Amino acid sequence: MKKIKVGLIGAGRIGRFHAETIKANVDFVEIKSVADIFAENIKDWAENLGIKNVYKDANEILEDKEIDAVLICSSTDTHSQLIIDSAKAGKHIFCEKPIDFDLNRIHKALDEVEKANVKLQIGFQRRFDPSFKRAHDIIRAGKIGEPHILKITSRDPSPPPIEYIKVSGGIFLDMTIHDFDMARFLIGSEVAEVFATGEVRVDPEIKKAGDIDTAIVTLKFSDGTIGVIDNSRKAVYGYDQRVEVFGSKGSIAVNNDHLTNTVLSNEDGIISHNPKNFFMDRYKDAYIAEIKAFCDSILNNIKPLVTGKDGLEPVIIGLAAKKSLAEGKPIKIER
Amino acid sequence: MKKIKVGLIGAGRIGRFHAETIKANVDFVEIKSVADIFAENIKDWAENLGIKNVYKDANEILEDKEIDAVLICSSTDTHSQLIIDSAKAGKHIFCEKPIDFDLNRIHKALDEVEKANVKLQIGFQRRFDPSFKRAHDIIRAGKIGEPHILKITSRDPSPPPIEYIKVSGGIFLDMTIHDFDMARFLIGSEVAEVFATGEVRVDPEIKKAGDIDTAIVTLKFSDGTIGVIDNSRKAVYGYDQRVEVFGSKGSIAVNNDHLTNTVLSNEDGIISHNPKNFFMDRYKDAYIAEIKAFCDSILNNIKPLVTGKDGLEPVIIGLAAKKSLAEGKPIKIER
Amino acid sequence: MKKIKVGLIGAGRIGRFHAETIKANVDFVEIKSVADIFAENIKDWAENLGIKNVYKDANEILEDKEIDAVLICSSTDTHSQLIIDSAKAGKHIFCEKPIDFDLNRIHKALDEVEKANVKLQIGFQRRFDPSFKRAHDIIRAGKIGEPHILKITSRDPSPPPIEYIKVSGGIFLDMTIHDFDMARFLIGSEVAEVFATGEVRVDPEIKKAGDIDTAIVTLKFSDGTIGVIDNSRKAVYGYDQRVEVFGSKGSIAVNNDHLTNTVLSNEDGIISHNPKNFFMDRYKDAYIAEIKAFCDSILNNIKPLVTGKDGLEPVIIGLAAKKSLAEGKPIKIER
Amino acid sequence: MKKIKVGLIGAGRIGRFHAETIKANVDFVEIKSVADIFAENIKDWAENLGIKNVYKDANEILEDKEIDAVLICSSTDTHSQLIIDSAKAGKHIFCEKPIDFDLNRIHKALDEVEKANVKLQIGFQRRFDPSFKRAHDIIRAGKIGEPHILKITSRDPSPPPIEYIKVSGGIFLDMTIHDFDMARFLIGSEVAEVFATGEVRVDPEIKKAGDIDTAIVTLKFSDGTIGVIDNSRKAVYGYDQRVEVFGSKGSIAVNNDHLTNTVLSNEDGIISHNPKNFFMDRYKDAYIAEIKAFCDSILNNIKPLVTGKDGLEPVIIGLAAKKSLAEGKPIKIER
Repeated sequence: MKKIKVGLIGAGRIGRFHAETIKANVDFVEIKSVADIFAENIKDWAENLGIKNVYKDANEILEDKEIDAVLICSSTDTHSQLIIDSAKAGKHIFCEKPIDFDLNRIHKALDEVEKANVKLQIGFQRRFDPSFKRAHDIIRAGKIGEPHILKITSRDPSPPPIEYIKVSGGIFLDMTIHDFDMARFLIGSEVAEVFATGEVRVDPEIKKAGDIDTAIVTLKFSDGTIGVIDNSRKAVYGYDQRVEVFGSKGSIAVNNDHLTNTVLSNEDGIISHNPKNFFMDRYKDAYIAEIKAFCDSILNNIKPLVTGKDGLEPVIIGLAAKKSLAEGKPIKIER
Repeated sequence: MKKIKVGLIGAGRIGRFHAETIKANVDFVEIKSVADIFAENIKDWAENLGIKNVYKDANEILEDKEIDAVLICSSTDTHSQLIIDSAKAGKHIFCEKPIDFDLNRIHKALDEVEKANVKLQIGFQRRFDPSFKRAHDIIRAGKIGEPHILKITSRDPSPPPIEYIKVSGGIFLDMTIHDFDMARFLIGSEVAEVFATGEVRVDPEIKKAGDIDTAIVTLKFSDGTIGVIDNSRKAVYGYDQRVEVFGSKGSIAVNNDHLTNTVLSNEDGIISHNPKNFFMDRYKDAYIAEIKAFCDSILNNIKPLVTGKDGLEPVIIGLAAKKSLAEGKPIKIER
Repeated sequence: MKKIKVGLIGAGRIGRFHAETIKANVDFVEIKSVADIFAENIKDWAENLGIKNVYKDANEILEDKEIDAVLICSSTDTHSQLIIDSAKAGKHIFCEKPIDFDLNRIHKALDEVEKANVKLQIGFQRRFDPSFKRAHDIIRAGKIGEPHILKITSRDPSPPPIEYIKVSGGIFLDMTIHDFDMARFLIGSEVAEVFATGEVRVDPEIKKAGDIDTAIVTLKFSDGTIGVIDNSRKAVYGYDQRVEVFGSKGSIAVNNDHLTNTVLSNEDGIISHNPKNFFMDRYKDAYIAEIKAFCDSILNNIKPLVTGKDGLEPVIIGLAAKKSLAEGKPIKIER
Repeated sequence: MKKIKVGLIGAGRIGRFHAETIKANVDFVEIKSVADIFAENIKDWAENLGIKNVYKDANEILEDKEIDAVLICSSTDTHSQLIIDSAKAGKHIFCEKPIDFDLNRIHKALDEVEKANVKLQIGFQRRFDPSFKRAHDIIRAGKIGEPHILKITSRDPSPPPIEYIKVSGGIFLDMTIHDFDMARFLIGSEVAEVFATGEVRVDPEIKKAGDIDTAIVTLKFSDGTIGVIDNSRKAVYGYDQRVEVFGSKGSIAVNNDHLTNTVLSNEDGIISHNPKNFFMDRYKDAYIAEIKAFCDSILNNIKPLVTGKDGLEPVIIGLAAKKSLAEGKPIKIER
């Protein structure tokens, strides 16, 4: 089988993680080149992984006729332009979330993708987690009947550095955006109204950075389902990632993935092990599966499982949540 | 030990249940008399239970000098006047929730109670459930640190008759009112803002009756905690009663109480037994404990564990939720 | 409805518990009299419970024509003679386990019961626990197919006083006897072979008393099912009472009954509450149900749910286990 | 870092699985050569995996001076001779379980390993499973006090082909051998006595093949701990792999690893997903970790975590279990 030749754009934490995941688990992909503005810092890493070319400029990847697809893992502010350039260069595109904080720029990027008729998949890896995927499949199979209530709990084990928070776009576009995607994925209907409430409870520095760290967001979907997401930047017991969809015939829940299956019983109680603490561990299988699915969409010329629209909508919801929090009232989303 | 002599006012489902619970479990209480507008219907029941007097008119109970306390279990519209009359008659009062749908009438009733210096306990029995009580105690002991997020799931196994729904005061005053009380009980701070969203998803007849059957209510507390309650009138898998309070040092959750501890494993999965299906089963121990606590407050002259104010506040929150739903915006609660 | 008039013989811990349970929960039973060799000690207790007569000699109960049935709750060495006397007096008999440590004496007692044609129910209350009963019903309904493996875990929270252990008949006849009954109840086949292994691990005083405190007993049933029971006199985390029956189509397990449904999550783990710690709490509902079933067998003239043979067989198995431990080899049970 | 060069001997299911696992997950190992009696069948597979040499004869691997270590994954009857030959050739040895069914041959092999001073690790991968490893560590750290009772449940999802069963050495040497290893690993004491009971409950063909499919094995350890293992060749609900060690200060249990963390609640109950069904999925991480540990023992010249003695002892116990079943009595193990 012919290997898909891929260029990696941006070799920060998530970029390197994708490359290593592919190397270990996806036989039919070759990462031929990597481009990063700090090219010199990643040379050893790239060589060790068998990546042939290390560039400073992403254009060198786009100009390489052998390259079939790019993985855009650079900072968010570069995503939409890189999507446009990659599309024009005829490359299939896997782009990390979010596409952009600006809806116009997203629309422009998606237009170019459509014109160029290349594949675009957005990096909402949670859809590929076996538990969330099974919840989705059970809902679609009608096993819980008509969905009535969606609940998502999504709490990080600890906040990112304040410097990161300052450029993150705020909790709703940085963290809750995954939950907005999960909400759409599970319910299969668009969000029509958002009401956000939030506080700074974890760290006053986050307030100084203009953000919140604790939030509850209520959603109304077009199909009448109502939902709620709760977020915290700091859950001391581990990475807390749960969903529940309640419907007319039952409910489907996804519980946490624990570090081990051990249970200690003593005078203090019956003690299970904590949830996994790190998103790269928790979603390891999902990261492998999303890349395989991206390749699958290229090889078999099928629609990616996370489309450009799937990249756009959570940003729309996130911006509405931001506005709701600022104005203290629910925000209707017009389409 | 001297027995507390009690008069039961209203011998509908909950009134008879209280009487039977007392008879079987509370040695030091004697139900001397019962008053019900359908007195003739309950004569056999009362005789069988060893209740001496069956009256049509509650005043006969209030005039009996031997009676120490009354249990007001009649319809909601009679509660506030009965509280006033009972207080004036110098009886200690246990009154089922809600006190009233009208805040002025509640205030008048509470004023009379204060003037008469009698005990008044409101029938929020969930506070006495061993699991919820332990969650409360763990929070108060500081074991989860400072509370950040409260979540309550409260779903009935099936809706009440439409005729009942029409006079129920609406889902927020009939069903969610218990959750508003639980919210205050667990967090220990007053609700400052309410945002309610709701739909009719279970039965269109409920819409015709002017009510909703599926709701999500967001709460902001004075201390900065944020919370969310989700309700449904129909959970096919059983009576779903869960809470979770998430804080700076951990979280405390209360899971459902299941019918049995059996687990069947077969090709279809690992199947635990459903939650208990009926509130009188689920809260059996709580109903015993609340009556014992009421007696305790009389015998030892201590403040009841669910005060008049605890009866008032959930009505305030419920009315705010109703207004929020009608106006589509969050409602601040001024005090 | 006519009340069943009952005489209680032996008012130690379990006797008093039965009387109190009946008083609170079983309307149609009147405990008319109690006989106890320390009659003077229980007078206040009896009066408080409304028991009319307090005797020193059980014969006064047996001579009372009004008494329908006796509850034999005296020490084990008196059981078989009291069964014989009660049967001759035409009383229905509820007798605590074990009937006796001597098989001949049990046979004589059962013969008299048969001659007198009175009901005899043995106090194996665990059969009436809702969880164990449901496991039994699921097995009988064929839902796990043909049983292959039985596992019972039965561990006490702490050992009884050494003085008690000395007269207990040994762990197999005092503690495991309940598990032998559970084994027969769940599998519905007789035990054909027993192999017991045991150690003193909890308290060397138990060794001095000639007993063990930690045991594993392997059972072979007539129908080919194999089983294992593990016992300990001391589980620090609480009263551990679990079973599992594994069959050709699946397995049914009974897990522990916990003190509450609370779950605390913190850095140390996800901490559920301990199992209930005391057999009278754990089996409260079962104790009520067994007395109701006994009355039911009298009122409707049906075979008791725990027969004399059900009292005999666990003693046979227990004696075989004792012999197996002494001889270090499996013991076949001939019938 | 210099890569460890490895030769794979035997490229059946487990051999190929090890090679693929190494390729994907263990950077510092190069599988240079493979030898298999059906060499022609594995050429494509080997090429695809980048293995340079494919031999029919294992000696070609042993003669290759560049090769540091061998993975012996051929049929059990070839293991001991291959260990001897590999040791003489100075290769470090990873050998699948069991070493041999014949104790003399094992002793000879272990003697050669000692003479040659090469590393030998036996393929008891379960020790490297994160859950079992954590249970082990918790026991060693004294958190459950002194162990009293060990329980292992080990049930396969379905029996292997009858042709395999005929040459498997019987259930105790093929299947229970893993549990004997786990027992020694967790308790840290040698087995002093074995009593086995077993039946054919799953498939009469297994009886014709001279084996059983359902077993309970009781163990006495030198330190006084007692234990029990139950096995079945067929658990319809999935691969059932649990342990529990009960001690003076508490117990540690390992529960099953489920396919996903989903929970479906409906009228039928609260339905969790089945345990993983296949040992290669269940122990995926353990297989990676055991190879890494083997390499670690070579690179750092430390004692392997599963020694030759660890390979010998379970065979001794397995043979004792076989004898116990045949003779119907407990068998003491003399050392």
